[in-house]
Order: sequence, then structure tokens, then C-alpha cells
Amino acid sequence: MIRHTVAFTLVHAPGSAGEEAFLTEGPALLSAIPGVQDFAVSRQVGAKSAYRFQFAMTFADQAAYDAYDAHPDHRGFVASRWAEEVESFAELDLVPYP
Amino acid sequence: MIRHTVAFTLVHAPGSAGEEAFLTEGPALLSAIPGVQDFAVSRQVGAKSAYRFQFAMTFADQAAYDAYDAHPDHRGFVASRWAEEVESFAELDLVPYP
Repeated sequence: MIRHTVAFTLVHAPGSAGEEAFLTEGPALLSAIPGVQDFAVSRQVGAKSAYRFQFAMTFADQAAYDAYDAHPDHRGFVASRWAEEVESFAELDLVPYP
Repeated sequence: MIRHTVAFTLVHAPGSAGEEAFLTEGPALLSAIPGVQDFAVSRQVGAKSAYRFQFAMTFADQAAYDAYDAHPDHRGFVASRWAEEVESFAELDLVPYP
């Protein structure tokens, strides 16, 4: 099990229509890709980080993760939306310890 | 509901006894503090981040989070272990969107 998370800030103004569109249309598209489980959208509210949002999703294994990464809907989203609308981001891939 | 996460690297060598001690003793102490729910310890395995581990926990509300933050066991752990054994870290506080 791999939990993939990405914290990010958007180019859009807080509370803008552009922000809302990204945060609803992105998850609708990405969560429908085969193998994506437990897709979650969060606000980052802590003062110790500049990131304002997070997407998170779970994959059963690396093969499912790789299939998502290569899926045309994911690739298209990254190229058409993420690259244009995300100002900065940080990814983590988490597996249970030990 | 607030999910508090902190990704980090340790001063300890990978696979060392010091690493294992931190990753087991820390969670045992912190997860027993009142108000802490769903404490999780993860390895960070993605190539896009230099952080190697993550602690994550959930609080019902800000009051529970504040009580944890002020709790002597948390303060003691930060002063005696975290400050000495953690090389770098990044915190996120996540609440469900919208």
C-alpha cells in the first residue's frame, strides 16, 4: 500500500473561481483513474507551511501507481492544468513502517 | 478534524539501532497523549523528496491539538529527542476541503 500525497499552492487567488475549479475538477478526473483509492482533498491550515492544499490517494502497489502515472488522464491533467495553475508543490510517497 | 503530519530525516544511519529506537519509542510516547488519534508511522519512499519518514496523527479539533502541543510528554520529546535526532522536517496540518 502506497499513500501518494502532494501539497501545493495555486496561482489562483484564495476563494477565487479558478481555485475552486482546480480543486473540484482535478479530483473528479484523477480519482476516476483505475487503481486510485481514497482520494482526499485537504486544506493545509498550519502556519509552519506555505502550502495551501493537498491531494492524497492510495495505490495497492507500485504497479497500480505506475499505471496511474502513465494514464492519459493523469498525463493530460499534469500538462494542461497542473503545469499552468500550480505555483509550487512537494510530493511524498508513504508506506507503513516498518 | 485536523490531520497533523511531519515528514523528517534523522541523524541516524539507515537501519541503525538509533533509527529504530526513535521510530518506535517516539510513537509509543506520543500516541499515548490524550486526544491523539490514528497515529501512523510511515517510510517516505518517493524519489522526489529527501524526507525518509513521516509521523501522522489526527485531532478532533484545535483544542485537542493545542492540548497535545502543550502536553509535557510532547514538550519533553521535542526537547530531548526531536531536537537532537531530527536533521530536517516539514509539517502540514490538513483539514478536509472545502
